[in-house]
Formats: sequence, structure tokens, C-alpha cells
Amino acid sequence: MAISKELINEIGQFSAATLHEALGKTGNLPSGIKPISPKMKVCGTAYTVKTMPCDNMMLHRAYAYAKAGDVLVVNCSNFYEAGYWGDLMSLGAKMKGIAGLVIDGCVRDADDIEAMDFPVFSRGLCIKGTGNHGEGILNQPIIMGEYMVNPGDIIVGDRDGVVVIPQNLVAETIEKARARELKEAKVRIELRKGLNSLQIYGWDKKYGY
Amino acid sequence: MAISKELINEIGQFSAATLHEALGKTGNLPSGIKPISPKMKVCGTAYTVKTMPCDNMMLHRAYAYAKAGDVLVVNCSNFYEAGYWGDLMSLGAKMKGIAGLVIDGCVRDADDIEAMDFPVFSRGLCIKGTGNHGEGILNQPIIMGEYMVNPGDIIVGDRDGVVVIPQNLVAETIEKARARELKEAKVRIELRKGLNSLQIYGWDKKYGY
Amino acid sequence: MAISKELINEIGQFSAATLHEALGKTGNLPSGIKPISPKMKVCGTAYTVKTMPCDNMMLHRAYAYAKAGDVLVVNCSNFYEAGYWGDLMSLGAKMKGIAGLVIDGCVRDADDIEAMDFPVFSRGLCIKGTGNHGEGILNQPIIMGEYMVNPGDIIVGDRDGVVVIPQNLVAETIEKARARELKEAKVRIELRKGLNSLQIYGWDKKYGY
Amino acid sequence: MAISKELINEIGQFSAATLHEALGKTGNLPSGIKPISPKMKVCGTAYTVKTMPCDNMMLHRAYAYAKAGDVLVVNCSNFYEAGYWGDLMSLGAKMKGIAGLVIDGCVRDADDIEAMDFPVFSRGLCIKGTGNHGEGILNQPIIMGEYMVNPGDIIVGDRDGVVVIPQNLVAETIEKARARELKEAKVRIELRKGLNSLQIYGWDKKYGY
Amino acid sequence: MAISKELINEIGQFSAATLHEALGKTGNLPSGIKPISPKMKVCGTAYTVKTMPCDNMMLHRAYAYAKAGDVLVVNCSNFYEAGYWGDLMSLGAKMKGIAGLVIDGCVRDADDIEAMDFPVFSRGLCIKGTGNHGEGILNQPIIMGEYMVNPGDIIVGDRDGVVVIPQNLVAETIEKARARELKEAKVRIELRKGLNSLQIYGWDKKYGY
Amino acid sequence: MAISKELINEIGQFSAATLHEALGKTGNLPSGIKPISPKMKVCGTAYTVKTMPCDNMMLHRAYAYAKAGDVLVVNCSNFYEAGYWGDLMSLGAKMKGIAGLVIDGCVRDADDIEAMDFPVFSRGLCIKGTGNHGEGILNQPIIMGEYMVNPGDIIVGDRDGVVVIPQNLVAETIEKARARELKEAKVRIELRKGLNSLQIYGWDKKYGY
Repeated sequence: MAISKELINEIGQFSAATLHEALGKTGNLPSGIKPISPKMKVCGTAYTVKTMPCDNMMLHRAYAYAKAGDVLVVNCSNFYEAGYWGDLMSLGAKMKGIAGLVIDGCVRDADDIEAMDFPVFSRGLCIKGTGNHGEGILNQPIIMGEYMVNPGDIIVGDRDGVVVIPQNLVAETIEKARARELKEAKVRIELRKGLNSLQIYGWDKKYGY
Repeated sequence: MAISKELINEIGQFSAATLHEALGKTGNLPSGIKPISPKMKVCGTAYTVKTMPCDNMMLHRAYAYAKAGDVLVVNCSNFYEAGYWGDLMSLGAKMKGIAGLVIDGCVRDADDIEAMDFPVFSRGLCIKGTGNHGEGILNQPIIMGEYMVNPGDIIVGDRDGVVVIPQNLVAETIEKARARELKEAKVRIELRKGLNSLQIYGWDKKYGY
Repeated sequence: MAISKELINEIGQFSAATLHEALGKTGNLPSGIKPISPKMKVCGTAYTVKTMPCDNMMLHRAYAYAKAGDVLVVNCSNFYEAGYWGDLMSLGAKMKGIAGLVIDGCVRDADDIEAMDFPVFSRGLCIKGTGNHGEGILNQPIIMGEYMVNPGDIIVGDRDGVVVIPQNLVAETIEKARARELKEAKVRIELRKGLNSLQIYGWDKKYGY
Repeated sequence: MAISKELINEIGQFSAATLHEALGKTGNLPSGIKPISPKMKVCGTAYTVKTMPCDNMMLHRAYAYAKAGDVLVVNCSNFYEAGYWGDLMSLGAKMKGIAGLVIDGCVRDADDIEAMDFPVFSRGLCIKGTGNHGEGILNQPIIMGEYMVNPGDIIVGDRDGVVVIPQNLVAETIEKARARELKEAKVRIELRKGLNSLQIYGWDKKYGY
Repeated sequence: MAISKELINEIGQFSAATLHEALGKTGNLPSGIKPISPKMKVCGTAYTVKTMPCDNMMLHRAYAYAKAGDVLVVNCSNFYEAGYWGDLMSLGAKMKGIAGLVIDGCVRDADDIEAMDFPVFSRGLCIKGTGNHGEGILNQPIIMGEYMVNPGDIIVGDRDGVVVIPQNLVAETIEKARARELKEAKVRIELRKGLNSLQIYGWDKKYGY
Repeated sequence: MAISKELINEIGQFSAATLHEALGKTGNLPSGIKPISPKMKVCGTAYTVKTMPCDNMMLHRAYAYAKAGDVLVVNCSNFYEAGYWGDLMSLGAKMKGIAGLVIDGCVRDADDIEAMDFPVFSRGLCIKGTGNHGEGILNQPIIMGEYMVNPGDIIVGDRDGVVVIPQNLVAETIEKARARELKEAKVRIELRKGLNSLQIYGWDKKYGY
């Protein structure tokens, strides 16, 4: 059940925080995973990877096998302090149309990656090189912090963080996100009039605040 | 004993580091609390808040009750990984003239907050939503890292960090900060002549360095 | 056996990550040590310092004793949360021609240091002041994370991190770094043709990937 | 597909480390979760719980709903520093025949729990009290560190740590664990003769060690 | 307003967790502070100390100045990894009738301290020696984690953790702790009959659990 | 320059803390490395090992190559959360007369290791299995926290922690440790008379304490 490009484009218009709320406050990936430049955004279908600590062979395979529009989502077995990804891999992935990288570990060559505008979300930057023994998992369900990410799930990330939307909830999530934005637009109008949220949400009367 | 706007403006001219030194090396809030954009600065009177972990009702109440010129200073019961504050609350607070937010936890909607130029100092960014059960403390003394912050204390923050100045020490601190800046200006002249600090402070002779 | 300025300039053209690889994946300093502004780069000969926790007298002595072109490399006895270095010391060091600071601890006065373009690599920013009892070590071998740094070793740092190159390996490392860059340039051409790394490195045939 | 008591008893004879190996090096729960007394062991079917930070209502419900032989397996939303469980709950659970508690958070009343010999595996001890708002998840799949735990999975814990065995792998895992123990018994005989593992596993010849 | 020995003895009969609850879930010191032997208990009036990182002169002064029945409560400026206290200081303190040590840092000579049965609660054990420059604070209010400890407050610690009871709340806290123990005794009887807490507290009817 | 068994036995009579002090407050290994049972002690000559993260082949080789009386001292490249060592390896090492293991990582099979009385000092216990790719370093200088350990250095560990004594300082360190113990014995007599350390060390007069 592939999600259409139109739906993916549409869901990518919302912020990660809005989608997290639309999902009933779920789907948030570890908050330590952030874009290497605050302007970077990412949106696409998950191609999942689990690497052994300090080994990046699976990442070479991942970008070779993934399809255009995929986001590589990578669990590094809790060993963050290595540069699992760099400028050459970014170039190769970009050439293939890969939509970006979301990795629970570090990367390197930040300037070059930023220059080629390939979205990378990571724990940070680290020059430490990796091995290439190659054990791990490709395109199967993986754990990312508090949630499981399945191949084909939708990944949306911005400066605030990254969210995963299960495939079967995409349409529903878009609808809820739209409703939330509409509601927020109305609240914004009230706030601009000088009302506070206790008044707008009726908490002043409900709780006597 | 309210501090006059003039004094607050004046103390806000000094850097957080200078005020910390003028206070006898005290008053430094946890160094993990930093502005979400390095250019942000904050200065105002503390309106203190303690929230339960992952709950932000107290923050809604806080900006409703606080007065123009107040800085919300928030202890989140050591649960950092939630987005306790966002763009709507920033808008509401800004409308009321709240001077900024200093929170020992995370926030979200960084781009929107930055765009409206509302100063937010936090542990970082996190999309994880919060509940609104509402337990906590409003405008009473709270602990922030190594120091107690009392309602009405002066809060000054910049890229280097945040400092709290007890109300009764404001005038004295300004005086000492001025003296320190004057002394530093003189040291700067000596340094530009090529002298080093061992010579300037006389440590070369005192200790034989 | 001093390294010539020409060699130092030459080695400073390579990125920290490239030099780390050229060294056989060694020499990486703790990845938590990063430039206070992402554009900063540092390159020079190590003048090593070990301070006691929360004491910076040794740093005053270090910049007074070090020579032009030296980079101060500082171990703070695992107490990161203090501002061991600031704008005055940066000015004094810059006047002497010190090439930069790499410190396993925090600093303060970030705006002023950035304005004077003195390269500072640190664990972060912290306003907490230090004492000046003065115990510690000057210009002797020190531990920085996983490696020992000897006085006179070459230090190269950029946004990705910092690497230490032992004096006797400088020429060899430059050669290997050049070879690596050449090889990467060739790989880049292949990647731009649409080949992936499995194909370029022959891993598809070797491992059946 | 319930697992028979016989199989559960049988699998409980193996150590957590042996079962982890028999599972192909999977199923290990976070190593920070340890018995409050090193002699405690636990074995049973998982009754899964997710609590909000600092709230234990779900744990009251869990032991009321779980059946004899169940082990409560609890995710506390990454807020460890609270005493989610104590002597009264241990007594209530023990009365119902609950086989033990495995919680990714802290507990309190350690002496009393130890005295009644109810197996508790936790991050440690903490006196901080919890609320009872009651949000969370009961008996549905939850994440515990690197793995998902499903209701009905088998949990085995000892001083070394805790492992989860998926229901459908129980018989196969027992077989593999038996084979491993047999193989280890043979290795033990060789080791007692004075051979080392390079010789026993043939690594000396294979790799020239 | 000194607390009588009788009241101190009486409050020491309750567990730290019970007193924390009787205080309205407040007063819990950092849960990382634990007895060096699980059997140790401590109870007495707080003599407060703040040391500089890695310096223990203040501790020598503290046990010399404190009176029999006092517990030394020590903040080490967030530098835990040093052995601030050992067997000689334990002997000296014990000779004076000091009731124990509660330190937010490490100690050493654990076997000897245990042998002389002097209660020590710490972050752990560390052999690293300290200096004796002597800056710090004696017998003034200090911060210990989430709470302030005032000289003369009552400190009670056991294997579960440590609690501070403000002087003016001692009588009231004893009363509430007694009431809580009585209530728990009744709950225990109900639990032994086979009822669960949902039934005992009426949550089954109130919430439909 | 091998150290005689007599000297090793002699140095092993001192506590780790005493030897650390005798070395001028140096040589302390990371305080997170502790015996798996508080009664364990270790003393011997260092056989050094550096493993890749989550790989223990080097440990198999290490105990095969080391000689009776050696202590294996292991750096696991900062990946602690794996069980690098277990009961079979302990048996093999014990058969060869290896004096113990000091590892900056975790181990498993704690009960069996304790039963065979083989001293193991580690970061803790973890069931997670390791690979055997085999990269690393054998019997060359390695970094252990703040210090370098050279093959042949003397390692002494007890419940308080572990210390490394450079080969060439053994005789001198024994002498200083003896002097320290003698001095402490005298202080102990003074303390038993009721004097405090301010009086005994003359700090009362020197500093007016």
C-alpha cells in the first residue's frame, strides 16, 4: 500500500510538532536527533536500517537499495559517537533521489552536506571513522526511541524534531493536522485580541483559574 | 519592593557572565539552559513556576497571571524531554508584555517563536506534547539548579547563559558590574600593549610565574 | 624537531575527518568539543594544559608561555561546567599570535570571542566563574578522551571535530590525506554518473550485495 | 496460544544471558534494569504497561487485571526518578500470584519487598511519590529499550539482566539454549584441561592467532 | 528552636519514603545518594556544607564544629567523582557523636567505614583524592537536588533514599506519618484478604476500572 | 624490568586509595569500574587490551597470551553496554593463573564468576552478546580514563576502585604508602583521644579555623 506523492507532499506541509499532536501525541523520535542545519526539513517514506556499533556498511547498502523519495532511518545500536555518514554518501544518495537521512548517531562532513542541501538529521557531528563488517538489518521494523518505525512509514522532520506517521494513518493524520491548524488559527486571533489561553479554552471557568 | 524599570534596563546592559562575577560568582542557572537562537537576550523580573513532569497547564496560568516585564522562570521537575511551550503561548505572552521564558526543559515551534522575537531560553527543542493536569507551584520560591529563584528576582540571559540577581542586591550588583567592566577595559588596554595577565595582575612577581 | 610553517599550513587545508582517516582512524578528540561558531577552524602546534576542576590559573600561564602558532589544548579534570576562558584571555592570546583554544570544558563571552575571530573549540558555553589556585600541568603529555596529546603535536579542528596528529607522522599523514582526497574525487565522479558505493568499491561482487 | 507452565518452568532454568544468545543475541532489555537484590530471579508471561511520567495508577490496574504467573513489564515514559511501586503493591501482586515486576523506572520499600521475596527488577530505588491520573497503556505491545515486548511474551531475569522471548520462539529457544549449555559444558572440560578458547574454537589455526 | 531528642528518635522510626509522603511528597534528596551498605540508616539534625569541586577542607571543619547528633549534609558543587570523605574522618566524626554523612559526591575507604558502623550516604565510591583550599559554605542553607536544606532540619535516610524534614514541620510530619502507617496497616489486611487496590481505594467504582 | 612477586604481594597489601595518594593523587582508573562483588580484590601486572565496540575476540586472545599473575586491563572503545566477558573466559583465565580482569565495559555470568572467585572489575553487568571480528590492540599502551596504562604496570583494585602504578615507581610507591599508613595510624590515635583534624594538622592555628 504505497502512499501517493501528493499525500506525502501534503503531509510535509505540516510541522513535526503538529503531526505529533495529530497522531494523539505519538510518533516522536528521540529529541536528540536534530537537523545539522536548523533550516533543513525532511519528508518521505522510511527505508529502515539497523547497524552494529561503529559500522556503516549497512548504510552503503541502504542508499543503493532504497528508492527515490525514501528517507533512510537508522538505528546505530546505541553507539552514537561515530561518523556513520559523510559527503560522499550524501552525494550518492542525492543522485538516487533519496529524500534524506534520519540517524540515531553522528555524521561528518557537515559543511559539504549542507552545501549540497541533502537533509541530514543526527545526534550531532563526529569525525570518528567506522568499520564495514556489515551486520545489521535492512528495511525491516526497527525501534527508534519510544516507537517502532516500519518500512514505508512517513517521516517528517524539521528543526523541532522528527515524527513517524504509520502508513495506514496518513490520510487521517492529515485531516487531524488540518483541523488542528485551523483551530490554532482561531486561537491566534483570540490571542491577538489580548485574551489568554485560560479564557480561550474556558479553563478559567472550568477550574476557577 | 519593586525594582524600577530604569534599574532593570540598566542591569540588562551587562552580560550574564559579568553579573555572575559581580554577584561573587553566584546566581548562575544551569548551563544547559540556552537561548533557542544565539542572538536572543532576556531581562526582567522573575515570575516563577514549577510544573509536574510532562504537564504544562501551569505555564498557561503563569503567562495569564504574570505582569508586563516579567520573565517566566520554570522548573519542570527534572523531566526535560517534552515541548512545554510553543508558538501560541509565545504569542499570548508577547501580547501581555511578558519579557521572555527561561525553562529547565524543552520547547517547540522554534521557527515561529524566533520569527516573533520572543526570547526563549530552554534545554533544547522537543516535539513531545504535554498533558494539562495542572499540579505545580506559581510565583513561589523555586530551585533552578544550584540556586533558589524568588518571585521578583531579576533574570538576565544571553548566549553565554542565564543569571538570577536577588532583588535586594540589584543596586549593589550594578555598581560592582560597572566596576568590573571598568577594570576589564583597563586590562584590555594593557593586553593590547602586549602584556599578559600574569604581568597585569602581578602574578609573575607574586608567584614567580 | 619543530614542524615547519609550510607543513602546518598544508595540513590545515585538510578536514579533521580526512586527517583522522589518514591517521588510520586515530587521533579524534572527544566529539563533544566543537567550535563555538560553526565557521571556526583551528590549526597549530599543541601547547598542552591540565587544570584542576573549576580553576583557570594554568590557562593564564599557558597563553603567556606559549609561542605564536600554538594551540592551547586543555584537559579540565572532567569538570566541564565552568567558564574557563573568556574575551580578555582571547584578546591576550590573539595578541601573542596564539592560534586558538581547544578545551575539554566550557568558556564564556562567546559573542566577543567570535567578534575577534579567535578560534575556540569547547564543550559549550557556561558563565560559572573559576578560581585561581593554580595547580595543574603545563606543556607535558595530557590525555584528551581516547588519545594522548604531546606538546608540539599538530591540532586541526573544524565544525566536524578536532584531530591530533603526532609530530613524527605529519609528513606521512599529509601524503595519505592527499591520496584519500584524490581517491574521493574519483569516487565523486563515479557517484555523479549514478553508480553507488557497492558498485564503486566492488562490494556488490565481493559480498553479493 | 498460551505457553504451558511446563515450558515456562523449563525456560526459567536457563540464565538470561544464555536465552539471549539462544535468541540470536536479541531480546535483551535495558541493562540498567536489575534485581533490587542480586539473588532475585524472575520468570513468567509478560503483562505489559506504559505509564505517564511520575504516575502509577496503571500499575494498580495492572496487578488487578493480570493473572497468576504474569510478570508486569513497565515502561515509565523515560522518567526513571520516581518510586512507582512499593511494599503494598508487592503484597497485593503476590497475593494474586503475580510472578514479579520488571520496570524501566525506580521503586521503593526495598527491604519490605525483599522480605516478602517478590521479585522486582528496576532502575534502582527512589522515594519520590507518584500521581494517579491514570493515562497510559495496558496489555498492548510496548517498547523496552531496543525491543518490543508483546503481552504473553516470556520474561526471564536474573542478576545479569532481563530477556524477553517472543511466544512463538519459546520451544525453539529452549532447544537452542540446551544445545548451548551442552556445548559450553564441553568447552568447560577443555578449559579445565588447560586449553584456551583460541585452541578450542580453532581460531589459532583459522586466523593464525 | 531545637528539636528534642525524643522527637528525633521518633521520626527516625519511619522510613524515608513514608516521611516523604507525610510531607506532601516533598523533601526527597537526589535518589543517586544511597547508603554505602544497604543496612545503614541515618537520622539527625542537618549541619550543612558546600564544598568547591574536589576540595574537602570544609568537611574537616564541618565535623569539628558540628555537635553530637548532627548529620553532615554536603553539596560538592556538582563534582561527584572524588573521594571527599574516608575512614579517618569517619573515626573523628564518630568520636564526636556525629550521626552520619549525607554527601552529593563520592567517598572512599568503604570497608573501614562500614566496619566502624558510621552511616555514610553518597553517590558512590571513588579513590580520587581532594585538595584542601577550603572555600565553601558552613551551616547555611544549601541546595540538595530539588530542595533547600537548612541547618537544623531533620535528615532521615535508609536504603530507599534520604528525606529532609523542615524543623517547623517535624511534629506535624510525625503525626501524618503515623496516620499513613495506620492506613497502610489497614490496606495490608485488605490485600491479604485478596482484594486489590482498585477495590480498596474505590477506584473500580469511581473510574469504572 | 619485571617486578618481583614479593613486591607485587607487598603492594597488594595497600588499599587502592592509599596507593593513589602515595602516587601523588594519580593513577586512579574511572570510578565507574568496580568489583562485581564488594569483597573482590585484584593485584597484578597489566596485560593491556583495546577492543572495538561490542567485540570480544581480543579478550580471548588476551587471556591466551597473558602470563600467570597478569591482570587483563581492557578499554572497550567507550561502548560499555555489552557483556564482553563471562564464566567460560573466567575459567580459562583462572586455569592459566591470570590474576583478574579490569574492564571499562560490562560482563555477564556474575554468579558463576563469583563462585569461582575470579576477580572481575567492570562497569556493571549486561547480557548483550558481542561479535568476534577481532580488531584492536594487545599489550600496548592504552588509555583508561585519565591515565595511560602500560603493559607491566601494577594494577591494584578493591571495593573503592582501581589504581595503576607505573613499573618504575613501585618501590617508591610502597615506601610512600607505608609512610602514609604510619602517619594515618598516628592520626587515628589522636582522633581516638577526641582531637579533630583541624587540631591534629594544625589548621586551627594556621588558618584560624
